[in-house]
Amino acid sequence: MTYCVGICLQQGLVVLADTRTNAGLDNIATFRKLHVFEQPGEKLFALATAGNLAFTQSILAVLREGFETAEGTRTLLDQPTMFRAAQFIGEVVRHAYQSEGIAIEQAGTSLDFTMLFGGQIKNQAMKLYLMYRAGNFIEATPDTPYLQIGEHKYGKPILDRAVTYEMDLNDALKVALISMDSTIRSNLGVGMPLDFIMLRRDAMAFDLKTRIEPGEPYFHDLRERWSAALRRAHMDIPAPPYGRQGS
Amino acid sequence: MTYCVGICLQQGLVVLADTRTNAGLDNIATFRKLHVFEQPGEKLFALATAGNLAFTQSILAVLREGFETAEGTRTLLDQPTMFRAAQFIGEVVRHAYQSEGIAIEQAGTSLDFTMLFGGQIKNQAMKLYLMYRAGNFIEATPDTPYLQIGEHKYGKPILDRAVTYEMDLNDALKVALISMDSTIRSNLGVGMPLDFIMLRRDAMAFDLKTRIEPGEPYFHDLRERWSAALRRAHMDIPAPPYGRQGS
Repeated sequence: MTYCVGICLQQGLVVLADTRTNAGLDNIATFRKLHVFEQPGEKLFALATAGNLAFTQSILAVLREGFETAEGTRTLLDQPTMFRAAQFIGEVVRHAYQSEGIAIEQAGTSLDFTMLFGGQIKNQAMKLYLMYRAGNFIEATPDTPYLQIGEHKYGKPILDRAVTYEMDLNDALKVALISMDSTIRSNLGVGMPLDFIMLRRDAMAFDLKTRIEPGEPYFHDLRERWSAALRRAHMDIPAPPYGRQGS
Repeated sequence: MTYCVGICLQQGLVVLADTRTNAGLDNIATFRKLHVFEQPGEKLFALATAGNLAFTQSILAVLREGFETAEGTRTLLDQPTMFRAAQFIGEVVRHAYQSEGIAIEQAGTSLDFTMLFGGQIKNQAMKLYLMYRAGNFIEATPDTPYLQIGEHKYGKPILDRAVTYEMDLNDALKVALISMDSTIRSNLGVGMPLDFIMLRRDAMAFDLKTRIEPGEPYFHDLRERWSAALRRAHMDIPAPPYGRQGS
């Protein structure tokens, strides 16, 4: 299992991912799911993956090493726009599906597979996409500035309530961490450490590219405070007034 | 879709259910999912259902009208203990699956099906069970005093944090309503009005058997307060301290 969330705001982009992979409950490991592709000052991409690990690793390798196109071998960083980059990833995914995906499915392994792809190319618009197994994708907009992949339900209520396009970027990171905390608490398949990037619009350098290890003081404190605040919040709500009403 | 939650505590039992049914997104209706079986002063049962509506209605009818057993026709209220009552429901479910369920599945309709069954028989222990399609069931315990069916993920974080076996029963109803609110906000397939029962241990009469209609002032106020509290809670958490750390 996996949980990744991306938030694309007026001020910039945050992408947060967990690192737990599991084949069943008895085979748990830590693998990075948030990957950075960077041409300093020119192109800054973040790619978060959910789904079959062998399949995603193979796609990542092709995106870095190059994919045979009509114009020759091209990498993800060769793409001229965010949209073209997303299309390129889609092509690579479809190709990998033909060459490996079908065999994986025939072996009885499910190939649920989604990705978050976001970033900015110099002098172009910042983008955040959610990509599907067929290589198709949707784009985050000011109306719905966040996208999730993997185990998305536990962490969605706080995003629904707290995320607005105009909010502060640091605040968005905080909300993403709360959303991750809710997911970690409720699903054993999502776990620490956490990786995230923060990218301010037009800064053309990652503000942050950080791993949060278990026991890291800020995240630990956030979890405690959030739990305490939820307890207080529900205790502050008056008791239900429904008296004995018979049937 | 459906969301129902049952909480079985030292003080008693709360069961809360929504009423929205949908066949696709374009065929939405309101049907009661929380059903009461009552022999005043003797037997008090609540049964909440999630899954195919025709199938659940057929099971409910048999539980009321009677099921042919080796000892003759028996209804749910004929059963002498909560455990025997749950076994009886299981038998009825398995029988319905043979007579209708297989045909429903052959017609290409999924038959996900779960129930919450709780209550008390005079001078016996109060019980809450989660029942599956095979007629098997698990029982809530002081360690995990709540059980959910249907769209359970959005509303689980608050239950995980707030429910304890020793908590006040009115407070448990409040927490169940908050859990329902999170689910309604995030899933269109779960909607008002809401039905709930509250049963105090050994009282042998329902404290409450109530429907909450849209716009009902307490639930409306609870939703507003909870939203405001969540916003305040995340704003009260200090901003992340992760400075510009390069790579």
